[in-house]
Amino acid sequence: MQMRSRFPATLLAGLILASPSLRAEEGMWLYSAPPREAIKARYGFDLTEAWLEHLMKASVRFNSGGSGSFVSADGLVITNHHVASDDLQKISDEKNNYLRDGFLARSLAEEKKLVDLELNVLQSIEDVTARVNAGVPAGATGEAAAAARRKVTAEIEKESLARTGLRSDVVTLYQGGAYHLYRFKRYTDVRLVWAPEQQAAFFGGDPDNFEFPRYNLDASIYRAYENGQPAKIQHYLKWSPQGTKEGDLTFVSGHPGTTNRQFTMAELEFLRDVQYPYVVPRIKRLEVLLLAWGARSEENARRARDDLYTFQNSRKVYDGRQAGLYSPAIMNPKAAQEKAFKAQVGDRADGAAVRAAYDRIAEAVAAQRRIFTRYRLLEGAHAFTSDSFGFARSLLRAGDERPKPNGERLKEFGDARRESFELGLFSAKPVYTDLEIVLLADALTLLAEHLGFEDPLVQQVFAGQSPAERAAALIQGTQVRDVAFRRKLYDGGAAAVAAARDPLIELARLVDAEARRLRQIWEAAEETRQQAHAVIEKARFAIEGPGRWPDATFTLRLSYGPVRGYREGGREIPAYTTFAGFYARNAEHRNREPFDLPARWMERKARLDLTVPFNFVHTPDIIGGNSGSPVVNRAGEFVGIIFDGNLQSLVGDFAYEDVQARAISLDCRAILEALRKVYDADALAAELLAGRRS
Amino acid sequence: MQMRSRFPATLLAGLILASPSLRAEEGMWLYSAPPREAIKARYGFDLTEAWLEHLMKASVRFNSGGSGSFVSADGLVITNHHVASDDLQKISDEKNNYLRDGFLARSLAEEKKLVDLELNVLQSIEDVTARVNAGVPAGATGEAAAAARRKVTAEIEKESLARTGLRSDVVTLYQGGAYHLYRFKRYTDVRLVWAPEQQAAFFGGDPDNFEFPRYNLDASIYRAYENGQPAKIQHYLKWSPQGTKEGDLTFVSGHPGTTNRQFTMAELEFLRDVQYPYVVPRIKRLEVLLLAWGARSEENARRARDDLYTFQNSRKVYDGRQAGLYSPAIMNPKAAQEKAFKAQVGDRADGAAVRAAYDRIAEAVAAQRRIFTRYRLLEGAHAFTSDSFGFARSLLRAGDERPKPNGERLKEFGDARRESFELGLFSAKPVYTDLEIVLLADALTLLAEHLGFEDPLVQQVFAGQSPAERAAALIQGTQVRDVAFRRKLYDGGAAAVAAARDPLIELARLVDAEARRLRQIWEAAEETRQQAHAVIEKARFAIEGPGRWPDATFTLRLSYGPVRGYREGGREIPAYTTFAGFYARNAEHRNREPFDLPARWMERKARLDLTVPFNFVHTPDIIGGNSGSPVVNRAGEFVGIIFDGNLQSLVGDFAYEDVQARAISLDCRAILEALRKVYDADALAAELLAGRRS
Repeated sequence: MQMRSRFPATLLAGLILASPSLRAEEGMWLYSAPPREAIKARYGFDLTEAWLEHLMKASVRFNSGGSGSFVSADGLVITNHHVASDDLQKISDEKNNYLRDGFLARSLAEEKKLVDLELNVLQSIEDVTARVNAGVPAGATGEAAAAARRKVTAEIEKESLARTGLRSDVVTLYQGGAYHLYRFKRYTDVRLVWAPEQQAAFFGGDPDNFEFPRYNLDASIYRAYENGQPAKIQHYLKWSPQGTKEGDLTFVSGHPGTTNRQFTMAELEFLRDVQYPYVVPRIKRLEVLLLAWGARSEENARRARDDLYTFQNSRKVYDGRQAGLYSPAIMNPKAAQEKAFKAQVGDRADGAAVRAAYDRIAEAVAAQRRIFTRYRLLEGAHAFTSDSFGFARSLLRAGDERPKPNGERLKEFGDARRESFELGLFSAKPVYTDLEIVLLADALTLLAEHLGFEDPLVQQVFAGQSPAERAAALIQGTQVRDVAFRRKLYDGGAAAVAAARDPLIELARLVDAEARRLRQIWEAAEETRQQAHAVIEKARFAIEGPGRWPDATFTLRLSYGPVRGYREGGREIPAYTTFAGFYARNAEHRNREPFDLPARWMERKARLDLTVPFNFVHTPDIIGGNSGSPVVNRAGEFVGIIFDGNLQSLVGDFAYEDVQARAISLDCRAILEALRKVYDADALAAELLAGRRS
Repeated sequence: MQMRSRFPATLLAGLILASPSLRAEEGMWLYSAPPREAIKARYGFDLTEAWLEHLMKASVRFNSGGSGSFVSADGLVITNHHVASDDLQKISDEKNNYLRDGFLARSLAEEKKLVDLELNVLQSIEDVTARVNAGVPAGATGEAAAAARRKVTAEIEKESLARTGLRSDVVTLYQGGAYHLYRFKRYTDVRLVWAPEQQAAFFGGDPDNFEFPRYNLDASIYRAYENGQPAKIQHYLKWSPQGTKEGDLTFVSGHPGTTNRQFTMAELEFLRDVQYPYVVPRIKRLEVLLLAWGARSEENARRARDDLYTFQNSRKVYDGRQAGLYSPAIMNPKAAQEKAFKAQVGDRADGAAVRAAYDRIAEAVAAQRRIFTRYRLLEGAHAFTSDSFGFARSLLRAGDERPKPNGERLKEFGDARRESFELGLFSAKPVYTDLEIVLLADALTLLAEHLGFEDPLVQQVFAGQSPAERAAALIQGTQVRDVAFRRKLYDGGAAAVAAARDPLIELARLVDAEARRLRQIWEAAEETRQQAHAVIEKARFAIEGPGRWPDATFTLRLSYGPVRGYREGGREIPAYTTFAGFYARNAEHRNREPFDLPARWMERKARLDLTVPFNFVHTPDIIGGNSGSPVVNRAGEFVGIIFDGNLQSLVGDFAYEDVQARAISLDCRAILEALRKVYDADALAAELLAGRRS
C-alpha cells in the first residue's frame, strides 16, 4: 500500500522543474495551475473552474497522513482502510479489535467517535510569494534568511486565521520558487461508519503489497460531524453506478506527500550514500522488533499491528527506491539531464549564477551530510522512539516556545497551528507501557551504535544504566501518558514543566540544546538549497517556458491518466481484477495467511457476482500520501479510490516512468457489491448511491 | 535454540584465564585437563579415566556445527532437531518437506542417506605446543610469525594423517597459550532414522526461543554407517530409563563454538563499538529478506526455512549479547577485574611485559578495527552471500593453493583437511537459483552501502548494472551449481578454472587479491593478540596457579552442574516442564502459530502420560555449538540432550553467571514417550533402551 505521508516538515523536499521531455502524464498538478492545455489536447476534455472547485472542495486531507473525499451530503468520507488503520488502532482495546475484525454502525448512534483525527478541506489558494520574499532582507542567507522567512510566514498565517477562522498554512512550492497560503476548513468530530476486516482490506499482506494483479477491499467510511450532527456538505462526489472501462480517462485528487523529482545529482547522491544506508536498516530493525514482540501473544500482536504494517510497507517502499538509486537505468538519465541543462545555460547571462547554484546545493548537502545521523537521532528523535517521548518533548518545547513572539517560534508552535497541535498533544489514544519500553530500549541502543557508547551525550542519556534498564525507568517513571498531567504542564508553562521533574521531560531537556542546534544547521542548509533551486528554476522557466508542477509537499494535487494494463516479464497484465480472481488466489494459497479470508467472505461467496471488477490500474502520477484519493471520471463522479502503486512506481520519489508504473485503485463497484452482499450494509450502500441519507 | 556453531576460523576467539573468583560451575573443560578436584570436593564424585574416555568416544561433532552422541552399538546418533535441520533441508524438495513434516524409517532400508554430513569422533589429544612454538623463529611477530605457525601446523597435521589415517587438527587453546593435536574418526555415510515435525521440535518458535518454561521435542536420530552397514560402536551411551530429578549432578559433553570470556576491555569494546553494530543489522536485514521472500509461496517458505530460523536465532543471541555489552552490571566488573589484575602484576618482574601485552592487544584490535568492515564484506564474503559464490571461490582458490607446498597454503587447503574440504565442495545439496539471486542482490547492496557506490571496487563488482541485474546475471550465468562442473575445474586446476571464464568465478578473482590482503592483515593482528595473551596467561598462571580452562573453540569440552530451577521477576521457575504444560501452552495460544501442534499430537493426547518430564534446566556452562550435547548422570548414562540456554545465559560469550543463567535440555523420558505413543516408533525406542537392534 502507498504510505500514509508521515514525513516531518524537516525532511528533504525537492523542486520540480518539468521539462518538455517528460512523459505526457507525469505530474501532480496544483489546483491553481492545472494542465488545461495538455488535457484538452490529449483527451479533448475541458477542465472548467466549476469542475475543479467542486473536486477541490470534495477532497479531504487526513492529518494522520492520507487522502479521502466526501461522498454524501450528510458528511460521509471515504478513505483507505490502511489510512483508517491508525484510527482503528486507537479506538481498539483488548476486547474490541476493530482493526482486525472490522466494524459497521447500523445507525447514527452507533457511529464511533475517533481519537485526535483532524480532516482538512482546502477552501482557497493565495499566492503570497512576494510578501514572503519581501520579508527576507536582500542578501540574507542561511540561518538569518530562514529566521526571517519563518517570521513573515507566521505573521501571514496568524492574520489569515484571525480574519477567516480557517486553518491557514503558508506552503513552500517549487522548493522556494513560490509560497502559497492554503486555507482549510477543519473537521475534528469524525466518526467511524464502516471498516472491513483488515484481512479483506489487505488481502495478500506483505507479499502482495505493491504488486498487481491485486484484490484488496482497501476502504473505510467515516462521517464528519459539526455541532453533534452529521456535517452538511455542499461539495461531495456523486457515486458512479457504472464505474470505468479500460482506456477511460481518470483524475486523482489527493495529497501526495513528498517527491524529489528535481533533486540535483548532489542531492540524489546524498539519498543514495547517506540517507538510505541509515534509514533502511532502521526500518528493518523495527520490523523485526515488532514482529518478534508481537508474536509473543495475541494482545501484543494487536498492540503492535498498525506500527508493524507501517514499517513493513516502508521497507518495501525504501527497498524499491534504494534499488532505483543504485540502478544505472534510472540514474544515468538523471545525470545526463543535469549535464545537458548546465550546457544549455552555458553562454546565457545567468549561466554563471546557475552553475554557482548547483555548487551551493552541493555545499549545503555536504553540510547536512556532516550532521545527518545526529540530526535524525536527536532532532528526529530516532534515539527515543516512543509516543511518550513525543509528549515529553512537546511539553518541554511548548513551555519554552509559547512565550516567544509568534514569528520567532519553531514552526509547529505558530499561533495558526495551535489548535492542531493541541489536538495531538491531548490525544486520548492508547499508549502501551510494555511496547514503549521495548521501543525505547531499542532506540537507545541505536543511539549508542551510531554515536558510540563513549560519546558524552550517550553517557549522559544512559545515566549509568543499560538501554533496557534506562528505558524501563524512563517509561515507568514518566507521567506524560496521563492527559490531565499534560494539560496541567501545558497550561502551567515552563515553570510547571520544570517543577514536575518528570524523568522523560528531563531527558528531552538534556538533549534539547543539541537537538535545536542541529535543527538550526539543517534548516539553514535547507534555506540555502531553496534559494539555489529558485535560481535554477528561474533559468529553466526562461528556457523552457511555463507549464510545470512543483514537487509534492502534502498539498492538494490533481493527477490524470487512463485506465490501462501493462506488460511485465513478457506477460500482459490486464487492467482489472475481479472477485473471481480474489477467490482463486485464496484457493491457490490454500487459505493460509496472509491469503486467508474472513469467515463471512467464505460463507457468502455464492451471493456475490464474481464478475464485478475489484481493483484496477491506471497511469496517474501518485505517491505516498495519495492513499485514499478519490478517482473520478470526466463527469467528476467517484469511480474508485487509490490505494497503492505497483513496484515499478516506487522510484516515483525521484523518477517517473509510465511504461510499467501504475497507480492501483479499488473499484467503486466492488465497494457497493461488498457492502450489500457481504456486510449487510444496505443502508450505507443506498446513502452512497443517493448521495444522502434516506 | 543454541546456535549451531558456524563461526569461520577467522573470527575472534579468546583466551581463558580462569580466576579463583569465578563461580563454581563456570567452565568448559578440556578432556585432557578435567576439573577432578573441584568435582570431587563439591560433589564427591571421581572422574575416572575410563569414565572420561567412554564419554569422549561416545561424543560426536557435526561438521555443520553442533554436537551429538552415540546411543546404540549399531550406530544410532542422537542430536537436536535444530542441528539436523540443515540436513533435513538438504534432502527435502517440493514434494517431501522432511523439515516441516518429520520422518521415520521403519527399516534399515528406509533410512535416508544425508548430504555432505561429516561426523567427527575424538580419539586422542596430544600436546604439540613445544613443536608449534619451535617452528616460529624467536622474535618473529605479526605476519611472519603467523606464516611460520601455519607452516609447522600443516606439517604436524599431515604427518599425523599419514601415520594414523585419522582426521588430524592442530587446535589453538588459551588463544595461543597451548596447541593440541586432536585426532578424529570420521563418518560420512550417515542416514536419517527419525525426525519429529519442526512444529513439535521448535514449539513456540521465535517467541519461546531462549525462554523457559519450555516444551520442545528438539531431537533427531541418525545412524552412522561403515561399508554400507550400520557402524559397530564400542563407546555408546546407555539410555537411562529413570532420568534425573531436581538436584542431580549432570555432565554435558559437547562442542561449544566460541567464548570470549577472557577478552580484554579493548577487545570487548571492539565487539561493542564495531563488530555488533555491523553484525546485528545484517542479521535483521537477512531475517526480513527471508521472511518476506518466504511469504510469497509455500515453496519459497520451504526453501528459505532453515536459513530463516538460523538468522532468527542469531538475532536473539546477538541482541542478548549486545544488551550485555551495554550493561554496566556486566561490563563494570570486567573493567574492575582487568584493573585489579594489572595492579596485581604491578611490582612483579613481569609487570612491564604484562602491561605491554595489554597495549599490544589494543593496537592489534585497532588494526583490525580499521579493516573490519571490508574484511567481513570481502574475505567474509558478506558482499556475495550465496552458496554459488562459496563454490566459485573454493574453485578459484583451490586452483591457486593446491600447487603450493602444504605449509604455505591457506589453512583450509591443508592436506590434512582435504577430504573434509572436498565433501563440502562436491556436496549435492540443493541450491535454488531464485533464492540465490535475491540473497546476492541484497549482499551487493550491502557492499555499496558500506563501501560507498563510488568505491572503485564496488564499481568493478557492479559492472554498470544494478545489484538486482548483476545478481541475476551472475547467478544465471555461472555453472558452479553443477557438481560435475565443479569436479572438472577442481581436477583441472588453475588452468581449467581460468579457461572456464565462469562469471561468478571471475567475480571471485576480481576481489581475491584484496580479500587475501585483508585476511593477511587480520591474521597478523590475531597472531599479535595471541602472543600477547600468552604473556598475560603466563603471569596469571604464576599468580593464580593452575586449574583453568581455555575459551571455547569448537573442541570437545566437559561441563557440569546440577538440575536446578531459578527465580525470575519474583517467581520460582521450576526445573522441569511436563507434557501437561505443553498442551496447556498450546491451549493458551489457541493452537495458533507458532504455538500450534502437529495433528498427531492433537489426536494422541489421551495416549500420553502427561506427567512425563519434557524439558529441564540445569547449570552446566554451555554455548552455541553445544546444541545436541548428551547430558549424562554419574553413571555416564544418557539422561537428556542440551538444546538451548535461557535468555540470561546469552551473555555467556563473554561473561558467566549461574544465578539465573541455565542450560535447557530435553528429557530422555520425553523422547521415549513420544517415540512410542506419538510416532509409533516402538522398534527405535526398543533399540535405544537395549543399546542395540533387536
